[in-house]
Amino acid sequence: MPRGDASSALITDVLEEYGSATREALFEYIPSGEPRESLYDLCADYPRRGGRAMRPSLCIATARAFGRSVGEALLTAVSIEMLHNAMLIHDDIEDESEKRRGLPALHVTEGVPIAINVGDMLTLLSLRPLLDNGERLGPSLALRLLEETERMGRESAEGQAIELGWRRDNPSDVSEADYLLMVLKKTCWLATIHPVHAGALIGTAGRFPSEPVLRFGYLLGAAFQIQDDVLNLIGDEARYGKEIGGDIHEGKRTLMLIHLFEHATQGERDRLHQLMAQPRADRSAKDVQWVYEAMLSYDSVGYAQRFAQGLAGAAQYEFDRLFGSLPDSRDKRFIASLPAWVIERS
Amino acid sequence: MPRGDASSALITDVLEEYGSATREALFEYIPSGEPRESLYDLCADYPRRGGRAMRPSLCIATARAFGRSVGEALLTAVSIEMLHNAMLIHDDIEDESEKRRGLPALHVTEGVPIAINVGDMLTLLSLRPLLDNGERLGPSLALRLLEETERMGRESAEGQAIELGWRRDNPSDVSEADYLLMVLKKTCWLATIHPVHAGALIGTAGRFPSEPVLRFGYLLGAAFQIQDDVLNLIGDEARYGKEIGGDIHEGKRTLMLIHLFEHATQGERDRLHQLMAQPRADRSAKDVQWVYEAMLSYDSVGYAQRFAQGLAGAAQYEFDRLFGSLPDSRDKRFIASLPAWVIERS
Repeated sequence: MPRGDASSALITDVLEEYGSATREALFEYIPSGEPRESLYDLCADYPRRGGRAMRPSLCIATARAFGRSVGEALLTAVSIEMLHNAMLIHDDIEDESEKRRGLPALHVTEGVPIAINVGDMLTLLSLRPLLDNGERLGPSLALRLLEETERMGRESAEGQAIELGWRRDNPSDVSEADYLLMVLKKTCWLATIHPVHAGALIGTAGRFPSEPVLRFGYLLGAAFQIQDDVLNLIGDEARYGKEIGGDIHEGKRTLMLIHLFEHATQGERDRLHQLMAQPRADRSAKDVQWVYEAMLSYDSVGYAQRFAQGLAGAAQYEFDRLFGSLPDSRDKRFIASLPAWVIERS
Repeated sequence: MPRGDASSALITDVLEEYGSATREALFEYIPSGEPRESLYDLCADYPRRGGRAMRPSLCIATARAFGRSVGEALLTAVSIEMLHNAMLIHDDIEDESEKRRGLPALHVTEGVPIAINVGDMLTLLSLRPLLDNGERLGPSLALRLLEETERMGRESAEGQAIELGWRRDNPSDVSEADYLLMVLKKTCWLATIHPVHAGALIGTAGRFPSEPVLRFGYLLGAAFQIQDDVLNLIGDEARYGKEIGGDIHEGKRTLMLIHLFEHATQGERDRLHQLMAQPRADRSAKDVQWVYEAMLSYDSVGYAQRFAQGLAGAAQYEFDRLFGSLPDSRDKRFIASLPAWVIERS
């Protein structure tokens, strides 16, 4: 795997460049009219908070690696970033998350009704750049990208439904395979599979197959998600932007929790099961601390980190199969650096 | 206006016929796979409860009045009905409605998180029939119908944002004009403007102008909404399917409430303002009863009924300008009968 300061600087540069281009174009798609205070100002709230812009950058970089211009992929990248922000708003309500990108979540400041509606509006607005694609890319490729977006949205909502079902029913037998299927749907489709596939479709006038992208995107996205869950436990709150230990507090199923369930004593398992069944408000800081320490003592965190490393290595291998024959370019190197980066970031 | 049993029977027949065709095709678009219990079974819940199917029927009837087949308009009608149900799920959460079509609202039985996600999935699924339109109607008209759908969705979300802003800020100076703009956006675009315009676009291969449809749809849709608000006060709960007086309980701005605000004494206005500022749970049955009786004593209900009649008459006039030159047909007669029907139904 490529490592070190050089590839880290490359990633920072590319995310900065494509992220700025995406955000600038994104704000053009948020109407400036009324209603402002209960709608359009709030549509711009999460995007204005920043974020890494990994998803739109991945789309643009893939199209560029195939020799296309930033402009040909930009509207699709804007749509991806808007839909990502729309989903964050609804996910934050559904997951009872209190913070997002270092600030209070939208439903915390505006209330659930307005936040639901803002998320709905951002979803609708995310269709507009895809419709505008028709002029530049032709109606057939524009329709194809809309189809892929709809597929990605469904996969994401299925993943969310699986996780919400777990929270409601509190099953104690969630396996690693169940968890990975949930991550494939809830995280990977939007974070990696769709951006890479959309970029490759733009790069090949609609002829790029989805199946190998699915494999690469799954491995990269799952490594990303597991590392994200690890950072939620052992990260630095100021840099991470969400409350540390928040996942335990929310009762979220993670690889660490599944590992802990499988290795803990019966008594610990019973306590864990009971804890997870409670409403969020009934889980105390002491409970969270107990789970956290158990995860450390059973090496559940180390296990998850090694798991993510394995996925990242496999993603590197799939990258070579998928894009190895493309000519060398900054964009190709950017994508090639991501598997190592997602597990090394803090 | 056409009146009497004959036109009422025609409307019942057409709604029955096009409603069944739409529902049958709609259920084909709900995936049969997993996750079922936390997602796809619930996507079918509201559609399975029935409803008048006025929106999809209006789309099909308009296309038919232009000489097209049911099949050419069916996928668009399915999309309209799906999006309508998606919005109902989110609106019921946002408006704290407890019942829908005679049964508990989805968020009451499944909780808010799952209900938000089911609404999101139905929104995504509503795009699929529009994408499938490409095969039958060609990619250009398919893209055009997607654009119109996105516009309609935005108008609806703007209308919802206006109303949610009122609920949050509790202004006492909402005027009739403010109310009618909100209704235009929140109700008319989805209930009448979009179904008629989409049907006319299908009927004319994309060449029908939007402006005259906007006028007809606004007048018809506003008459419909005001009558709906009247029925919420004086209707029969079993037939209406929602709790009677629920709008007052929810603190919803209606034409009756605006009329009451304008005609009540200062003391009554102060009490009304205070009542509207409370959370829903703090408004008692006694408060609701007081508002209800004040609306009757100031003839606010009669005023709203006469207002709706005026709008329906104007809708009738616009219908003749819009579709008068089309050859006589059952579908044309169906649309022509709607202005009278929306204010006569109970």
